[in-house]
Amino acid sequence: MLSISHRGQIMPSSPIRKLVPFAEAARRKGTRVFHLNIGQPDIETPRLMLDAVRHSDFKVLEYSHSAGNESYRRKLVEYYASVGIEIAHTDIIITTGGSEAILFGFMSCLDAGDEVIIPEPFYANYNGFAVAADITVVPVTSYIDSGFALPRMRDIEAKISARTKAVMICNPNNPTGYLYSREELETLKEIALKHNLYIFADEAYREFSYSGKHFSAMQLRDVDSNVVLMDTISKRYSACGARIGAFISRNRNLVDTAMKFAQARLSPPSFGQIAGEAALDLPADYFDATKMEYTSRRDLLVNRLNGMPGVICPNPGGAFYAMAKLPIEDCDHFCQWLLESFSYNNQTVMLAPGSGFYGTPGLGRQEVRIAYVLNTASLNVAMDCLEKALLEYPFRKE
Amino acid sequence: MLSISHRGQIMPSSPIRKLVPFAEAARRKGTRVFHLNIGQPDIETPRLMLDAVRHSDFKVLEYSHSAGNESYRRKLVEYYASVGIEIAHTDIIITTGGSEAILFGFMSCLDAGDEVIIPEPFYANYNGFAVAADITVVPVTSYIDSGFALPRMRDIEAKISARTKAVMICNPNNPTGYLYSREELETLKEIALKHNLYIFADEAYREFSYSGKHFSAMQLRDVDSNVVLMDTISKRYSACGARIGAFISRNRNLVDTAMKFAQARLSPPSFGQIAGEAALDLPADYFDATKMEYTSRRDLLVNRLNGMPGVICPNPGGAFYAMAKLPIEDCDHFCQWLLESFSYNNQTVMLAPGSGFYGTPGLGRQEVRIAYVLNTASLNVAMDCLEKALLEYPFRKE
Repeated sequence: MLSISHRGQIMPSSPIRKLVPFAEAARRKGTRVFHLNIGQPDIETPRLMLDAVRHSDFKVLEYSHSAGNESYRRKLVEYYASVGIEIAHTDIIITTGGSEAILFGFMSCLDAGDEVIIPEPFYANYNGFAVAADITVVPVTSYIDSGFALPRMRDIEAKISARTKAVMICNPNNPTGYLYSREELETLKEIALKHNLYIFADEAYREFSYSGKHFSAMQLRDVDSNVVLMDTISKRYSACGARIGAFISRNRNLVDTAMKFAQARLSPPSFGQIAGEAALDLPADYFDATKMEYTSRRDLLVNRLNGMPGVICPNPGGAFYAMAKLPIEDCDHFCQWLLESFSYNNQTVMLAPGSGFYGTPGLGRQEVRIAYVLNTASLNVAMDCLEKALLEYPFRKE
Repeated sequence: MLSISHRGQIMPSSPIRKLVPFAEAARRKGTRVFHLNIGQPDIETPRLMLDAVRHSDFKVLEYSHSAGNESYRRKLVEYYASVGIEIAHTDIIITTGGSEAILFGFMSCLDAGDEVIIPEPFYANYNGFAVAADITVVPVTSYIDSGFALPRMRDIEAKISARTKAVMICNPNNPTGYLYSREELETLKEIALKHNLYIFADEAYREFSYSGKHFSAMQLRDVDSNVVLMDTISKRYSACGARIGAFISRNRNLVDTAMKFAQARLSPPSFGQIAGEAALDLPADYFDATKMEYTSRRDLLVNRLNGMPGVICPNPGGAFYAMAKLPIEDCDHFCQWLLESFSYNNQTVMLAPGSGFYGTPGLGRQEVRIAYVLNTASLNVAMDCLEKALLEYPFRKE
């Protein structure tokens, strides 16, 4: 009998996508489903980016440089400078989405069996990349009561073993929306220097910081060798389908190593790079309108949620997600029930079960992740549905 | 001291790209360099494909389905049927280049330390994907004297260990251009069934088969669970920058497993998929002109090479590569010397050292891979250069 690899067997299915068949069944019954379960923004991709691709004028769709087009990397240096990150274009490898940047980081810094500490709840696909790279994610719990702030230094240090090679944060955070403070970043630096660890910083949502200015791990001083920035244009410009990200570090040896993985896969997508480079010509105030839109969505969402009896939702400082605690026992059951057995005015809502974002078994079962990727009118109706649903749900727990 | 992972350290640099600095230096001296070292075709990408992207009309550049757009996969079924491969669209996962299809195969079928047997010389990047997946490539030597035909069954079986999970071929072959016969594929089937192994078939160059019809591993009967097709549109349509490939198998369990790796990285590039889908509207005779062009290049190249004293070049049956044996001792030195110390009428030629395509140390040192990706006029001049160079080379060996 032909065998599937062990890693193939333990590779997790997407916890967000596993409810899709239930959503499809609901739609077939004629129920409108509000999709708050996935981070696909509804914001239009800047016309400038799409036009750059549409007006492209070449005859051969060639491989690009394995590190991405030099013109793009040079222009990115200016973008990063504008957000306070000083780097050279040789510190950048353009990747196929942020996903590949994470994989390059895991593979270049960790060997099979090595460990990366990540505050939980965390982006579920980190588990997938960890299985692909044969490394272990060691979760350190952050709590809804403190708004999902960085765990205390001693709690993080308690997770460090001889196999620990890195600490990773997503800032602002997916799924919690938490925006880490400069002080929290300084704590990470202290840990990294003391224990000789890499800091992996996934800053996909950098531009969506509402409560104060974003402080990047790349802005930490005297820790250049340790910091790796994993970036993407997917959310920044609502360009998820471009599959363009970046692996960035001032550690030359590390970039040279990641470059070998980049060479093996030849090059990142050419069209996406054209779109990404064009984005750098957007006006300086481009993000203002988007941020204002997300802020009003967030305010509406958080107000509505906290107005529901038994629901707690910390105010997220960034990204476009909120983790809410509901008066339920089993979020997986509840999210499926929403699609299978509930509707209100022929409408229902699709949420991501919180449990899928925790590494520690049993945690997050009362929580859901809500992506505010719909306009305020739709969000409001979706919250009407959720409110009714929580009153109707037969397994409600006070 | 922060450490680079072991796999990062052993990850090979591209043997093809390591001569690039010498080529750049040659150009700076004013020498024209004919690039026969890399598989970037000069054929124009079909206008139809680029126009489909340029005329695209959407407002949000969204993630696609993790397996790729369903419309694209359904149309691909027709393409494969047209070349004698019967599959369903659910057997297909669209990947980011053929590279990702190979990585998904390695990760889904092999665990760390497992082995895949590959006839050498082989595509050098297989080594890179093997390091990324933490598996071992076990080479079984094919020989220039037999035109790089599949090694005998007993030679392949001699390489099988308890850790062997798969046998892999590239057909037509990169770097040798060898087109495997139906009989050779049947031998692979016999081995796979007898020893319970996967057959990985990289058929990137399927459409460039000159000496007879291409027989795909997917056309083998009663071995459905074992066969994995790793495909790409990069060479087929001269669309390397699209980064679109495919992982294809009739083994449901295996496709479901690869799909989990596909979900983790979200989706393949959206623009590239548009181009790939458009390619399926090309007229049935589209490949005729390209094949005719490659055939005349091949004929010229092989004639010129075999006309040089001491040079042997088997006639490649497909792809756009030839492996030639030269009257030299050390191809790495010779290829560097061509760029550093030689010119003829202010021109020289860049070749890929054969040693980089062998897994067994010491093999291939008299060989070079020549990609016939330039038109016949340029190829002719490049061959003039090579002929002169072989006469001038101070370390020529008779």
